[in-house]
Amino acid sequence: MLRSCTAALRTLRALRGRREGASPAARDPVLVRRWFSTEKVIPKDYALPNPSWSKDLRLLFDQFMKKCEDGSWERLPSYKSKYTQKSEDFKTYFLDSKLVKEQLSQAQLFTRGYEDGLGFEYVIFYNDDEKRTVCLFQGGPYLQGVPGFLHGGAIATMIDATVGMCAAIPGGIVMTANLNINFKRPIPLCSVVVINSQLDKIEGRKFFLSCTVRSVDEKILYSEATGKELPLSIL
Amino acid sequence: MLRSCTAALRTLRALRGRREGASPAARDPVLVRRWFSTEKVIPKDYALPNPSWSKDLRLLFDQFMKKCEDGSWERLPSYKSKYTQKSEDFKTYFLDSKLVKEQLSQAQLFTRGYEDGLGFEYVIFYNDDEKRTVCLFQGGPYLQGVPGFLHGGAIATMIDATVGMCAAIPGGIVMTANLNINFKRPIPLCSVVVINSQLDKIEGRKFFLSCTVRSVDEKILYSEATGKELPLSIL
Repeated sequence: MLRSCTAALRTLRALRGRREGASPAARDPVLVRRWFSTEKVIPKDYALPNPSWSKDLRLLFDQFMKKCEDGSWERLPSYKSKYTQKSEDFKTYFLDSKLVKEQLSQAQLFTRGYEDGLGFEYVIFYNDDEKRTVCLFQGGPYLQGVPGFLHGGAIATMIDATVGMCAAIPGGIVMTANLNINFKRPIPLCSVVVINSQLDKIEGRKFFLSCTVRSVDEKILYSEATGKELPLSIL
Repeated sequence: MLRSCTAALRTLRALRGRREGASPAARDPVLVRRWFSTEKVIPKDYALPNPSWSKDLRLLFDQFMKKCEDGSWERLPSYKSKYTQKSEDFKTYFLDSKLVKEQLSQAQLFTRGYEDGLGFEYVIFYNDDEKRTVCLFQGGPYLQGVPGFLHGGAIATMIDATVGMCAAIPGGIVMTANLNINFKRPIPLCSVVVINSQLDKIEGRKFFLSCTVRSVDEKILYSEATGKELPLSIL
């Protein structure tokens, strides 16, 4: 829903830094943080292959990495975005919150909360000219709905993430205001699907997007969706 | 998305058994399974309080359990629905599937895959006369989107579960064909919300439902949604 997590911000800043021709240090916020803070751990980028990735997922990943070589596509890094990383960006939220400290200390990004291979394995690529994101997604065994198939909520989650990122890169920090999903066919558990999102139009401050979820060979249309994203003015 | 998991079937059968005045053994499929199979473990019902439940959630739970006393409301049990429970109901799916056995052996219901308190803590109640489900939901720290708030996908997941169950009890095994969600305000992590779903109309084989997500005091409308559910004819 909200695209304004630390990880998304970090991704956006990294992309902007690259485009503006910043120095290697300045364009890498993780590196900068390491130099100028007492924090010693570099957050792990989860949008990279691990042993749980199937052959299909690795093959698609390699194909898109090839597309990245001429700069038309970019791979978006992805982090767990724990609360304990103390993002100053959301200070206003925390001040209003009545959450128990103990619970918050365990907080982590929904889509990155599983061990490798069990939950959401994915990587998102972005094409700036086409205003398009492509998410390569392998849904693990902990995302089951009907036995053998992905839960509809897990599909909705990845659609939300892909659509949201497609608006967040050109539009900054946004919130999903509407998500309208047509589920056409159930997705087999542990299979790979390709989620394709397109920015269709911008009206004032509203971003309108569309999205499809297809099999790797593109022959099966599993789901299609539309999304509306709004800038988060309270931040 | 698909409401046809083992857990849902077990719930439906348990409810039908009660209504038809079956014997204690016949109306408890878990007990029957234990008597007539080599399987010795009784699946745990997760739709019951555990130490992670907040005061708000426990209070609401107690209020609804009180409503259950006159039979107008019923608490729906909820299980992990592991593949290893060998549900015969979905044999057709498994025969067509090319999934790796090792992965399937780890499969579990998306909404019950977390340790107590970390993910989806919820219980669904059903009112047959009003054709209505109410889900009491506490979203744990592993469901984070923007720091301090629930991920939109986690909200979509619980809306899907609540709407789907509202159609599944009168309609049998159903699949969510459409889910249209308006996200109005972000939901604080670890807070409790009440998801209210209503069966609005039935047209032929289609079930049309509406849904709201509100704060415990009902003052804040976090999200509203509509859903369309279809019977799963292939089973």
